Amino acid sequence: MTDLSAPPFSSRHIGPSAAEQQRMLEAVGFESVADLVAVAVPEAIRAKDRLKLPAAASEAEAIAELRALAGRNQVLTSMIGLGYHDTVTPAVIRRNLLENPGWYTAYTPYQPEISQGRLEALLNFQTVVSDLTGLPVAGASLLDEATAAAEGMTLARRAGKAKSPVFVVDADTLPQTKAVLATRAEPLGIELVESDLTGDLPECFGVLVQYPGASGRLRDFRAVAERAHEAGALVVAAADLLALTLLAAPGELGADIAVGSSQRFGVSFGYGGPHAAYMSVREGLQRQMPGRLVGVSVDADGAAAYRLALQTREQHIRREKATSNICTAQVLLAVIAGMYAVYHGPDGLRRIARRVHRHAAALAAGLREGGVEVVHAEFFDTVLARVPGRAAGIVAAAAERGVNLWQADADHVSIACDEKTGAAELAKVWAAFGVERADAALDAVDDALPSSLLRESDFLTHPVFNTHHSETSMLRYLRRLQDKDIALDRSMIPLGSCTMKLNATTEMEPITWPEFAGIHPYAPEAQALGYGELIRTLEDWLAEVTGYDKVSIQPNAGSQGEFAGLLAIRAYHRANGDTGRDVCLIPSSAHGTNAASAVMAGMRVVVVACDDDGNVDLADLDAKIGKHRDRLAAIMVTYPSTHGVYEETVTEICAKVHDAGGQVYVDGANLNALVGLAKPGEFGADVSHLNLHKTFCIPHGGGGPGVGPVAVRAHLAPYLPGHPLRDGSPVGPVSAAPYGSAGILPISWAYIRMMGSDGLTAATEQAILSANYLARGLAPHYPVLYTGRGGLVAHECIVDLRQITKETGVTVDDVAKRLIDYGFHAPTMSFPVAGTLMIEPTESEDLAELDRFVDAMVAIRAEIAKVASGEYDPADNPLRNAPHTAEALTADEWSHPYSRSEAAYPVPSLREDKYWVPVRRIDQAYGDRNLVCSCPPLEAYED
Amino acid sequence: MTDLSAPPFSSRHIGPSAAEQQRMLEAVGFESVADLVAVAVPEAIRAKDRLKLPAAASEAEAIAELRALAGRNQVLTSMIGLGYHDTVTPAVIRRNLLENPGWYTAYTPYQPEISQGRLEALLNFQTVVSDLTGLPVAGASLLDEATAAAEGMTLARRAGKAKSPVFVVDADTLPQTKAVLATRAEPLGIELVESDLTGDLPECFGVLVQYPGASGRLRDFRAVAERAHEAGALVVAAADLLALTLLAAPGELGADIAVGSSQRFGVSFGYGGPHAAYMSVREGLQRQMPGRLVGVSVDADGAAAYRLALQTREQHIRREKATSNICTAQVLLAVIAGMYAVYHGPDGLRRIARRVHRHAAALAAGLREGGVEVVHAEFFDTVLARVPGRAAGIVAAAAERGVNLWQADADHVSIACDEKTGAAELAKVWAAFGVERADAALDAVDDALPSSLLRESDFLTHPVFNTHHSETSMLRYLRRLQDKDIALDRSMIPLGSCTMKLNATTEMEPITWPEFAGIHPYAPEAQALGYGELIRTLEDWLAEVTGYDKVSIQPNAGSQGEFAGLLAIRAYHRANGDTGRDVCLIPSSAHGTNAASAVMAGMRVVVVACDDDGNVDLADLDAKIGKHRDRLAAIMVTYPSTHGVYEETVTEICAKVHDAGGQVYVDGANLNALVGLAKPGEFGADVSHLNLHKTFCIPHGGGGPGVGPVAVRAHLAPYLPGHPLRDGSPVGPVSAAPYGSAGILPISWAYIRMMGSDGLTAATEQAILSANYLARGLAPHYPVLYTGRGGLVAHECIVDLRQITKETGVTVDDVAKRLIDYGFHAPTMSFPVAGTLMIEPTESEDLAELDRFVDAMVAIRAEIAKVASGEYDPADNPLRNAPHTAEALTADEWSHPYSRSEAAYPVPSLREDKYWVPVRRIDQAYGDRNLVCSCPPLEAYED
Repeated sequence: MTDLSAPPFSSRHIGPSAAEQQRMLEAVGFESVADLVAVAVPEAIRAKDRLKLPAAASEAEAIAELRALAGRNQVLTSMIGLGYHDTVTPAVIRRNLLENPGWYTAYTPYQPEISQGRLEALLNFQTVVSDLTGLPVAGASLLDEATAAAEGMTLARRAGKAKSPVFVVDADTLPQTKAVLATRAEPLGIELVESDLTGDLPECFGVLVQYPGASGRLRDFRAVAERAHEAGALVVAAADLLALTLLAAPGELGADIAVGSSQRFGVSFGYGGPHAAYMSVREGLQRQMPGRLVGVSVDADGAAAYRLALQTREQHIRREKATSNICTAQVLLAVIAGMYAVYHGPDGLRRIARRVHRHAAALAAGLREGGVEVVHAEFFDTVLARVPGRAAGIVAAAAERGVNLWQADADHVSIACDEKTGAAELAKVWAAFGVERADAALDAVDDALPSSLLRESDFLTHPVFNTHHSETSMLRYLRRLQDKDIALDRSMIPLGSCTMKLNATTEMEPITWPEFAGIHPYAPEAQALGYGELIRTLEDWLAEVTGYDKVSIQPNAGSQGEFAGLLAIRAYHRANGDTGRDVCLIPSSAHGTNAASAVMAGMRVVVVACDDDGNVDLADLDAKIGKHRDRLAAIMVTYPSTHGVYEETVTEICAKVHDAGGQVYVDGANLNALVGLAKPGEFGADVSHLNLHKTFCIPHGGGGPGVGPVAVRAHLAPYLPGHPLRDGSPVGPVSAAPYGSAGILPISWAYIRMMGSDGLTAATEQAILSANYLARGLAPHYPVLYTGRGGLVAHECIVDLRQITKETGVTVDDVAKRLIDYGFHAPTMSFPVAGTLMIEPTESEDLAELDRFVDAMVAIRAEIAKVASGEYDPADNPLRNAPHTAEALTADEWSHPYSRSEAAYPVPSLREDKYWVPVRRIDQAYGDRNLVCSCPPLEAYED
Repeated sequence: MTDLSAPPFSSRHIGPSAAEQQRMLEAVGFESVADLVAVAVPEAIRAKDRLKLPAAASEAEAIAELRALAGRNQVLTSMIGLGYHDTVTPAVIRRNLLENPGWYTAYTPYQPEISQGRLEALLNFQTVVSDLTGLPVAGASLLDEATAAAEGMTLARRAGKAKSPVFVVDADTLPQTKAVLATRAEPLGIELVESDLTGDLPECFGVLVQYPGASGRLRDFRAVAERAHEAGALVVAAADLLALTLLAAPGELGADIAVGSSQRFGVSFGYGGPHAAYMSVREGLQRQMPGRLVGVSVDADGAAAYRLALQTREQHIRREKATSNICTAQVLLAVIAGMYAVYHGPDGLRRIARRVHRHAAALAAGLREGGVEVVHAEFFDTVLARVPGRAAGIVAAAAERGVNLWQADADHVSIACDEKTGAAELAKVWAAFGVERADAALDAVDDALPSSLLRESDFLTHPVFNTHHSETSMLRYLRRLQDKDIALDRSMIPLGSCTMKLNATTEMEPITWPEFAGIHPYAPEAQALGYGELIRTLEDWLAEVTGYDKVSIQPNAGSQGEFAGLLAIRAYHRANGDTGRDVCLIPSSAHGTNAASAVMAGMRVVVVACDDDGNVDLADLDAKIGKHRDRLAAIMVTYPSTHGVYEETVTEICAKVHDAGGQVYVDGANLNALVGLAKPGEFGADVSHLNLHKTFCIPHGGGGPGVGPVAVRAHLAPYLPGHPLRDGSPVGPVSAAPYGSAGILPISWAYIRMMGSDGLTAATEQAILSANYLARGLAPHYPVLYTGRGGLVAHECIVDLRQITKETGVTVDDVAKRLIDYGFHAPTMSFPVAGTLMIEPTESEDLAELDRFVDAMVAIRAEIAKVASGEYDPADNPLRNAPHTAEALTADEWSHPYSRSEAAYPVPSLREDKYWVPVRRIDQAYGDRNLVCSCPPLEAYED
């Protein structure tokens, strides 16, 4: 009988149907996928067995299993605080932004013309941070408060004048921040000194103050800042954004740098993340800032337009000289936080903050009346109670009433109020303390804010924060911004090395369920049994897929996974007494992040050359190994290579490095070309990071969140990242939360669960076939660089425009911008080779979309030919003037020597479905010369 | 102390802020809203007290209460069948369509140029129905299978040649269909005769056959159809769409008309609805068909374009001569069903059907092997087991195992298999029967489909059903269609009489929770305690709001509420022995639906004239009452009137009708102008229907679903609609399900819960203020027709273009289409007065949007002036040529005497945010002359 089971999820995930796959195979010249793979993938690396994973579940089955896991999480009211506070995500934002593929499937806004919507949203976020912290330049999000503090520390070191290796840390700093600072300081030779900041400062290059303190205490740090500045040190303030609506801004108190979390601006706990951290800096430090920064510039018509500013700071350009290894940030969450501020406006935010504070004040008053000692007289939202010997009992009594408090130690309980706190919660807390008082009586108590710290400056005066306060207006604002952008819900995003595949709805739905979204990262593990099982299972599956022995999902970005992997190598060498091994070999073709991460892990980067085919030059490798044999710590290679080729020599490279006592790091960026076919942990590598936001379907969110698990062989397993509030480890945490961005792990869990071994393997095979199909289609028109055996590529291909540019003046940029007129996001530009485009179709694009892309590229090639032949003016042609806005195309005057219809509808299918780009080509240099990084006054938008 | 509570939901629902409201009051010339209302609303109708409703809940509180209600529903596997079958809604469709305001906030596609996306989706639905039923013309959805069968009955009567008043009903018809047929037949003098269809047919005008039968039995009805046709009668087949993928089409068996439900194409139970019913007819009957029909036409450039066809059949045009009173349909659900077919394609649908059938066959075989008698040898999905005396026990045993079966009677149990049925479910059913068999063994049994009925014809061969089978492709198809349309997520939809207000996310979220979506309408009430409480509470709240004594939420559209209200009046008169009272007075300004409903309720319509101010002409009313005093059944008036005015005389009208022994029906279409200020049940009316999809925030869904509760004073309460499977009533059901479209009632529940008395009243006040603000803004440019006291309007205003048209030739149509170029959906055109526009802003639009609309209308008036002055060519100007597509505006040749920028950007704000209409003005007449109502071949789209 015919198989009547429902079509597997893999048939929905994989774009081409069986019939389409057959046509693609014919075009590429193979009978079957197996034949293609046999030629493309070197036998030496092929996995022997099928992946040992549970049989694929249907979408309905996976959802049922996830509901069962969710049911094992228990959502209590969490008044734990410690940097994580409950908050209300406005429903209009949850549905139309967080649950909307128009927002969550977008890529990082490197192509600014098709990213104006999310860039505006990020500028709002920057304005929120800049206004509230009182510092002029804020970036477009970092990974979490702890790593942001670490970035603040290294920024202080780079920018400061003091020579001391000491960084002073406020004793009242969040515990996870202290731990991450320690992890990050040690490889760089930074000495951390903890201080209560009351006496003299030791000699240092920087000071971190927590404002308000982890214990809730509010202190004026003006004097500390003065002393630090006198000594040439910089001051980093880790500050709570909501508190800042009532309190003097860090910049007003003397901070040079502010960092913190924007989680409580509408982003759920998610058992620790993802949430957007922030950083802002005083004038003069902006060129030293890590991470992405959105700025205002102008387009070819002089109209205001947004784009990423000062990109030369970043790892993809500066490599080992970068300010940081951060690339993926937390864009989607930063956008939510910004929209939360847009929706509430300054008055609404102040009102929320005052409500939080008044509840904390009432809580403290009630405790005092009940005979409980309250440690700090001045606080914003967190009350520290001294209850000698009774802390554990009180925390347990509160949990029985459905409230999680924080047991600071045996004698202290800390209680943090938040946006959701009301009279009912206070009553439960008092009851847990045995205090008889059932009435919050907010009116009866005084504020507990020091008068010297009351905020006097305005914030969020820009119209965007004072307009969209009705749901209708908010809804339309979100729609309007979304419509400006290209995301995966419109068309293919063929970005080499980024694996922009389907982010299936069934994968996405669970992340906004309250049972996954509502768990505080420090809730007792017994309340998170579902999370526990999901995390263990996912780590095991990832180990099986990669051939490693152990995986940690803690790193909340690929960059952090790299860093964790290198730390494991470092710790391993040290444990073996190899304290001198600090050289990290990196091929010239590597992602810039590799080099930046190596530097962070205290290593020296030595570059290995590549040959003309883009492969690691074995002779140079031998030479470099020879030169650095005794100090060799590791090699970092990407596989398949960043040139999109399965290098035949990878096992040989691994062996050479191992022979010299080094460890092999395989960058998992290109894992989508391996899953089910080959396992790095089996073909010679010791450690990899994975990008769950590439291969395992976490959406890119416009530039984050990501998850970057680190996977290791057994000998490195003891050196995976730990966490002070969970299990210990000789290596400290690389992320603030014990399980990193736990809240989005259901996405990858669901993907693996629904694909199973066969589905995952079929996806890899189709990804390879699709890349080769594109390569064959483009090769007659553009030279395809770098192919492996049989002239085949792996899961991406590179087309070379250098000769074209030389002959015609038409650049990679021109082609990329012209693709916008054809409705496409450009491929990866000039990486790994300048003057080229790297194209990765992924398995999720169907044949029609692949053909539409080839048609566009062929049509563009014909346009280039017209430039070459002189038919088009070299300075005034559809390529050079791309992209074309509707406004330009409908202008009353048309002075170009080509026609409007050539510009607008170069292929007929565009008449059916046309994306209208909102701005013309953006002047990058202008924006960097005239840096504006917060919402500009409205006049700036006028013509 | 300042109030620190969170801003109430009403401040999110109501668009203007307090400051904006003040500015609007100044413009209208009042100090306060109270002053305005005191002048606008006649004292005689003002309610004395505040509404007695619970204090407003916050969004978070309302969601928590709804979760608690949901928790009291128990979701079992329901194998009850009887026209409702479990189904999997593909997640990509749920999230991107059902949960997407771009789809659910759209209006009925009366303005086809801005509705091409949903019109294409409806054409897909029509194609599914037409292909599967084998009948050439299918409509764009009816309300439910039972009312569709009733519409089939009346269509047979209208179209057939037979004079007999008899309609023969298959004894194996669904029980709710029989009951609704009875309700609908009696007032029209139709005699229903039930028959097993085995012998001779009685003399009749039509026959209904259920295919497959309610008991599961499959019969070939060719012979019945032949006999019926010989007698001049028409054949209506009520058919299951999924079964038709395997079975001969009704049209192939001789049916003239097919009806049924598309629920099992991806639409959840929802405790009875909403689901889309369908109707298709043979060639020749299309002009007699009820409800909406989408057809293909051409636009001004000759390009293919969709629009509603043959509208002259409909109630809004033909009034008492209409084919039906239906107006709101089930568009959103029809779109989902169509997309389900697009996503699965013909092969996928066949595969699902075969799986369902094979499980049913295995179930029957297992029962037989276990010694249970299976009644029918041939069936599709439903197995009827004869178990003398044991039925109740078996149903209870199954429920214990988590499965609902259907107890047909004491001796029979019926079990329906569906898309979700698998081996686990069969095992539970067998166990409930005490049959020891745990293995489905699908392979081991024969099909139970009669070979004479196997389907041989193809279906869904159009490319759209054979393309979008990957999630990525489906996602983009949905986005592409959505982007063609204007819905509330883009801009104001100022449709008079339609109340296009905010449909808040918090109101919408619960409807897709499994605990509300997953309950079969005939599940035991003990499994639906949450629904029970929600429904009772909502009915009570609606009674309080309207001043009536009792409400029934059963009617699943306003038209059905009207019908139910008139039936109650009819039953009341009859119970009083007043059998001759059959005259229904209807003012000339009434909605066409009023007249159509009166005819359905067996009444004669007598029109009452209106005076020059649009009010009921009291002299004519007296005359008509005098003439028909003894036969006077009722008057139907809309309040405020359809002219948007609070008539001073309404209490007088009520008194006059009551004096003559008639009942007063107040149409609740304009209730948004009354809530909190006045109650129809108190100022003189006996009965009203409400439109939950207007005043109470159920979204319009592109033309449905709606809910039309009927509200009555105590003397009419005994005559509210009943249901054969729930409580009895002297009046039968008007909808298939006991609680109508129960699945969307959480929306209105949440709205009332979150607004409270003050919020609801404030919304009404703002709606009145906003309408008057618009009227003041427009009055200098367009005459405003009909005002009440103080020159004020109620919640909408009418601007008069008749003089303008006479002087310049510029028509209402020109203005409506030109508004599209300005980014607006047109106001209501030519209702209630030809040559006018009726504008209802609602309370949800903020001041900026109201001003944007006024600016557009003022700019259009200036364009009209240029026509008048001769500056614009009367035949070639921006108004006459509107709307302008991007393709037209970027064309290489521009031959119009006005400029491109005048056409595209007549006001500067359009340069920031421009909606691009996908087609130019559509030729309505062409489409009616050349009727095409299913997906046309692709060549049709070529230029």
